[in-house]
Amino acid sequence: MMILGIESSAKAASAALCHEGVLIAQYFQNSSLTHSRTLLPMIEDLLKNLETSLRDIDLIAVSKGPGSFTGIRIGISAVKGLCWALDAPACGVSTLEAMAYNGLSAPSGSLICCCMDARREQFYNALFEMQDGKPHRLCPDRAISAHELAGEINNFEKDVFLVGDGSHLCYNTLDNFKGNIILAPEPLRYQSAWGVCMAAAQEKPQPADELLPVYLRLSQAERERQAKVFGNAPAEKD
Amino acid sequence: MMILGIESSAKAASAALCHEGVLIAQYFQNSSLTHSRTLLPMIEDLLKNLETSLRDIDLIAVSKGPGSFTGIRIGISAVKGLCWALDAPACGVSTLEAMAYNGLSAPSGSLICCCMDARREQFYNALFEMQDGKPHRLCPDRAISAHELAGEINNFEKDVFLVGDGSHLCYNTLDNFKGNIILAPEPLRYQSAWGVCMAAAQEKPQPADELLPVYLRLSQAERERQAKVFGNAPAEKD
Repeated sequence: MMILGIESSAKAASAALCHEGVLIAQYFQNSSLTHSRTLLPMIEDLLKNLETSLRDIDLIAVSKGPGSFTGIRIGISAVKGLCWALDAPACGVSTLEAMAYNGLSAPSGSLICCCMDARREQFYNALFEMQDGKPHRLCPDRAISAHELAGEINNFEKDVFLVGDGSHLCYNTLDNFKGNIILAPEPLRYQSAWGVCMAAAQEKPQPADELLPVYLRLSQAERERQAKVFGNAPAEKD
Repeated sequence: MMILGIESSAKAASAALCHEGVLIAQYFQNSSLTHSRTLLPMIEDLLKNLETSLRDIDLIAVSKGPGSFTGIRIGISAVKGLCWALDAPACGVSTLEAMAYNGLSAPSGSLICCCMDARREQFYNALFEMQDGKPHRLCPDRAISAHELAGEINNFEKDVFLVGDGSHLCYNTLDNFKGNIILAPEPLRYQSAWGVCMAAAQEKPQPADELLPVYLRLSQAERERQAKVFGNAPAEKD
């Protein structure tokens, strides 16, 4: 099966093509340019240089969140458009689960801690354990405070592999941890379209019109509306 | 400093742009298409999508070998052409040293064993130790038999992280090894242009006309000539 994977849930964006689980090509960009300008040209160039057509793709996979609300919307919208035009199935995967594949080099039994900086003193986080060469989920995706997450991890007596743009901040809060902590090196620090393809290969395809973003928290507009209507404290920008 | 890195020493090819040690973009392709067709379009697309010009690049780095004789020639020739046109400095780095950066996620003190399948029952190999977040070289680049390399590694009492297209074969020969062996997961298995940028940042730039490929062994043509002239056994294809 040929999978086109798309990742645009944070500052970096990437597109990858995997065939039967093998990475054929990946294009990764971590610049200041917006994904709405870079994502589709990256996909177009990737396919052109592989002399492959969109028609050769069996499934289009995308990270559906959590992450930057705008980034997730750009990725999901691009996939909905492509799938509609091609009459191809889609697959939305958890950003954190896709990112967990960056921990494949961690020894078996290690804890893979995926943490994205969610601002407002929180991480978007999920924990996985490396078993039989795959990440196995230990908890659902969630928004959690740095303090709470450090408390949970400090209770583990395993090596911890930290990935995600919040990993450095998380690393700094784990001062009581007794095991080995490995902070993912740069090319493994951020989510990638390769991870999206790997996670999608474990999931069922779905019609693209059923794809929905997963924000985990209310959007800034919603929070501001609630603050106006119910008098809650106004929220920071997403 | 903005470094453009180029890797074409084996089946996969890649181009990357790093600024002050941070990966800005990488384009990786592991298809059946020849590097002479894919390498320059990848660089062109990478720069176009970053809205960056070749003139913004301070240094062009390339893996100078060991590896596929044809692949190395394509990479070095491309860099000589670009540097000549731009009047920019070049940097040729060891393919194996660039690949050692794939082991950055290995725990401190681990042995990084870089091995490329050199055919004729040999590996192109170098050994490194992870110290202070960097690979430190333990031996020069060499062509070595699987048997000899296994003998050396079996004497180490450290964890071993295996990278390169010969890593799986090497893994299978290490049946007496007592420590933990980690076989690099696929996105870290092969050499990458990011590693070329990382290795180049540790080296002195040089004029591009001084760049020379490092083959470590005689080319097929040379071996066949020697076989004719001196009556040595004819050699396999590179």
